Amino acid sequence: MTIKRELDSSEALRLLGGVSLGRVVFTRHALPQIRPVNHVVDGGDIVIRTHEGAALTSHTGRADGPGVVVAYEADLIDPDTHLGWSVVVTGYAHLVTDPRELARYRAMLRPWVEQTMDYAVRIRPDLVTGILLTAADA
Amino acid sequence: MTIKRELDSSEALRLLGGVSLGRVVFTRHALPQIRPVNHVVDGGDIVIRTHEGAALTSHTGRADGPGVVVAYEADLIDPDTHLGWSVVVTGYAHLVTDPRELARYRAMLRPWVEQTMDYAVRIRPDLVTGILLTAADA
Repeated sequence: MTIKRELDSSEALRLLGGVSLGRVVFTRHALPQIRPVNHVVDGGDIVIRTHEGAALTSHTGRADGPGVVVAYEADLIDPDTHLGWSVVVTGYAHLVTDPRELARYRAMLRPWVEQTMDYAVRIRPDLVTGILLTAADA
Repeated sequence: MTIKRELDSSEALRLLGGVSLGRVVFTRHALPQIRPVNHVVDGGDIVIRTHEGAALTSHTGRADGPGVVVAYEADLIDPDTHLGWSVVVTGYAHLVTDPRELARYRAMLRPWVEQTMDYAVRIRPDLVTGILLTAADA
């Protein structure tokens, strides 16, 4: 039998920071969108590098527009036992515009594919939830 | 160097059907939501078992309400090489209400956690996209 336990936000962010791949979730043209990306956790924020910067940070596509609310998910779940964890962070996404920060994140976040990925996006967590799925003792 | 190739919908559904874990993405209270679930591909539809049936299928929470548009994502990406694939299906989610279908899906879809997961939800793909990330020949 599997036991499901809710993680507190510090446990959840620690697990998220221990992996490099996740999925950013946002709404575009009223439709749910999801993209796999890589991330770092930096000072409690999640920073991703993406070519979807405009869609992630402004309904108007303006790079300096107000942030939009996104969800960010990472998990590590065994496909056979279904044991593991899943963490979901919800918060506002903002473009990283400071040149020094941008250079630092570009060095930390290797793009997956050799294509222009000009944007670094910072997600400031408003809500962090997570579940831990463990095997119960017999 | 990594090569990114777009998958056609039949390739993408085949890859999705080869794994059992994915993530369903929807909007609730205007916020993006994501939940890891397990799935089967059945007759070209994605069927998941969840306790979020009401949120996934009706803005009003009515079990027999109109479907809502959801996205469903699965991926298999190597965390070190970043090679692999990701598939996203977008379509309307509908509760499975036929008792025989429901019994069949309940047998096929083992819930992860020992909790009530009364709903089986069928997602009929309107849009299937996928990417394949492969290593280029030197």
